[in-house]
Amino acid sequence: MILDALRAELGEGRVCAAPDIEPRYFDDETGGVAGKPLGLVRPASTQEVSRVLSLCNAAGQPVVVQGGRTGLTRGAVPRDDELVLSLENFAAIEAVDAATGTMALGAGVALQAAQEAAAEAGWRLAVDIGARGSCTIGGMIATNAGGHQVFRHGMMRAQVLGLEAVLADGSVVSAMQPMLKNNTGYDWTQLMIGAEGTLGVVTRALLRLQPAVAGLETALCAVPDYAALVRLLALLRARLGPRLASFEAMWDDFLAQAIAHCALRAPFAQDWPCTVLVECEGEDDGALAAALEAAFEAGMLGDALIAQSGAARDGFWAYRDAIGEITRTMTHFEPFDVGAPTAVIGALVETVRAGLEAEFGALPCACFGHVADGNLHIALDLGAPGREHRAQAVVYDAVRAAGGTVSAEHGIGMLKRDWLGHTRSPAEIALMRRVRVALDPRGILNPGRIFDMETA
Amino acid sequence: MILDALRAELGEGRVCAAPDIEPRYFDDETGGVAGKPLGLVRPASTQEVSRVLSLCNAAGQPVVVQGGRTGLTRGAVPRDDELVLSLENFAAIEAVDAATGTMALGAGVALQAAQEAAAEAGWRLAVDIGARGSCTIGGMIATNAGGHQVFRHGMMRAQVLGLEAVLADGSVVSAMQPMLKNNTGYDWTQLMIGAEGTLGVVTRALLRLQPAVAGLETALCAVPDYAALVRLLALLRARLGPRLASFEAMWDDFLAQAIAHCALRAPFAQDWPCTVLVECEGEDDGALAAALEAAFEAGMLGDALIAQSGAARDGFWAYRDAIGEITRTMTHFEPFDVGAPTAVIGALVETVRAGLEAEFGALPCACFGHVADGNLHIALDLGAPGREHRAQAVVYDAVRAAGGTVSAEHGIGMLKRDWLGHTRSPAEIALMRRVRVALDPRGILNPGRIFDMETA
Repeated sequence: MILDALRAELGEGRVCAAPDIEPRYFDDETGGVAGKPLGLVRPASTQEVSRVLSLCNAAGQPVVVQGGRTGLTRGAVPRDDELVLSLENFAAIEAVDAATGTMALGAGVALQAAQEAAAEAGWRLAVDIGARGSCTIGGMIATNAGGHQVFRHGMMRAQVLGLEAVLADGSVVSAMQPMLKNNTGYDWTQLMIGAEGTLGVVTRALLRLQPAVAGLETALCAVPDYAALVRLLALLRARLGPRLASFEAMWDDFLAQAIAHCALRAPFAQDWPCTVLVECEGEDDGALAAALEAAFEAGMLGDALIAQSGAARDGFWAYRDAIGEITRTMTHFEPFDVGAPTAVIGALVETVRAGLEAEFGALPCACFGHVADGNLHIALDLGAPGREHRAQAVVYDAVRAAGGTVSAEHGIGMLKRDWLGHTRSPAEIALMRRVRVALDPRGILNPGRIFDMETA
Repeated sequence: MILDALRAELGEGRVCAAPDIEPRYFDDETGGVAGKPLGLVRPASTQEVSRVLSLCNAAGQPVVVQGGRTGLTRGAVPRDDELVLSLENFAAIEAVDAATGTMALGAGVALQAAQEAAAEAGWRLAVDIGARGSCTIGGMIATNAGGHQVFRHGMMRAQVLGLEAVLADGSVVSAMQPMLKNNTGYDWTQLMIGAEGTLGVVTRALLRLQPAVAGLETALCAVPDYAALVRLLALLRARLGPRLASFEAMWDDFLAQAIAHCALRAPFAQDWPCTVLVECEGEDDGALAAALEAAFEAGMLGDALIAQSGAARDGFWAYRDAIGEITRTMTHFEPFDVGAPTAVIGALVETVRAGLEAEFGALPCACFGHVADGNLHIALDLGAPGREHRAQAVVYDAVRAAGGTVSAEHGIGMLKRDWLGHTRSPAEIALMRRVRVALDPRGILNPGRIFDMETA
């Protein structure tokens, strides 16, 4: 019925009934099982998205919005009877303004394509995540994607100058202007960023670009304990200022597994509780080396290596990038992406480790993260299914006690929905629900993601 | 009636009836005439704000929220029968975390007090505006204040890590966490920032601090035309990267009046169409001088001076700071704060000048602004009252044609309300109204600011 109406509006080629949907539309990166969607629609213009949502809204037809399907919370995986709305036809980089450093593009453009277009114009799109080859700009906006340059350049939110979006009722809102300042009423674009597609469908964006970096200095730093890591971060911020771009912590359990599973050499002569990958933007003027020298003298460093070549830099990143291989070897991988104040993340790791050991005995676990952003990842091998909830309770109870958050950068989707109230208050969730109802009163956009409106 | 209830809840000392309200509660910086408010309440805790709003919401009592009353859009000036809610008792700097660079404070803290507390702890609150002595953090959050460091550090929005706010119905929402990443449902704090107090009353904030600057290089640059200014900006961004902190343009009409009214010496041997005050953060390593040398050779500069001392730097800023004296000498001052893409601001100035001349003949006018942010200010002397609307039409029509916005950093308040739809679409305004109704269904918070809900 709705598929017929969509075909009549958009043409046969844009609409696909359930039996003909290719398998890729059922996946994200969690590997779970999808529901049975009603069909798939692939509009190719904002006006077409508007027509699709008008029809769905009138019919009360639930829609699941898809970008590159690289999420980790099952936000884009179809449930039963949903219409899959893919933005893959919004794949055009429309304009790069090389004079002022902005880029207009469709929501379906892959991050890497956008990064390359920026680089060709002599600029840089200053956000990067592992899924760059297939994740899309629209999905990154919907999930307010993070990554390892957030401390320096902010999350996806900070890259967005303007947006175009379609609301649940089909109305089109557009604010594709390059100004950094626009205080005219509510900045509704902020509402779309990080709403996981529940408040509107982002169709186009105008992104802010950063000047290309003149160079990078990279170091691998061993710290004697977490308190030293916090002091090292403060020293690097004070001495390097805005040049400090990455500060990626890897606990000993992470480094040991990286070495074991990727056949890497141990970087230091002895083991240390924590190793930090530090990157500093700008011309190689020895500023990072001088700062590390000072840190060493102040007892913040046990050992340190500075990359003397591009190959050495790649070698340092190989430890950090080993996470893919580490999780692939796990029997029953459970990913955690939590937030906590930087100062207490060290204690949080200890609490979580002790709690998991008390609950399950020894389990393979790798702790790492963007600690300068207050972001800790824990890759846990549960060994067997059925233990997820108990493990989540251990981790999220500790996170709550630490004043943290159950999701730092992955979002809530369907996977963390039951834990939203663990670190958001009833008043906060009530506020969110009011906004949700105001913008999508029939609840057709990504229903069941973030919260379950039916139980409101 | 409501005053009695407030006295019963909060005590006599917190509540003041209309005849006893001191004159300062009737002003902002526009100098216009206020209405006759019902009374004044000065709660001293979030719980008291909650009680005030609960009572007002139940009674349908309109409230006008006040910080430092330094706004330029009459957003905080009381209308007839409104209850003035002052946050002046929220004046505590609660904590400065010198280890990680954050500051928790009340909404009523003056910007300068916050800046000084940050500096004492070895950090920097990286936002600055002229009203620093009396504007408050809460007001700056409510209006998403800008200033002259936005290109480098972002607007007030970018300084906010966490907020506590009270909604119209008295419910308290709090997210006072220092993490840069927290993707758990909608980031409702973004809704409060720039909403001009119409969606909730901000009571406390957690701000991000930046490392103290190691030094500043300051230059005064004369450009032969606006196209050269745009090229100069691109060159400085490419060469100085994140160190470029200020890029303040002053057109010839501005500079001439600054010189005349402040008894300053002309900076250059000849007049130039535009002069730019450039500031670069970091140790004085000659980077700015080298960049300006390259710009001169590329024909982007007519002349340039680099400050060799703090006194010389102050001398450069004296031109820019002359704006206060320039407007004070105007017979009938009309302030414009508009946005447009940086590349077209030069043409916009020409269009506006020609349009005003055609409408009124020659009028004293001073053009200046944060052009790297896409922000142009025009101080216009209308000479006589009654010309405001015609002047606004000239300016805002030109701004709309340039793809710009009728407010860059001052906001809408009551003064620009009738122009909101000039550069926001009906769909955007409809979205804003839906959010407004969802969060404040009885419309008690700052009614009539941004838009007139009664006419919805």
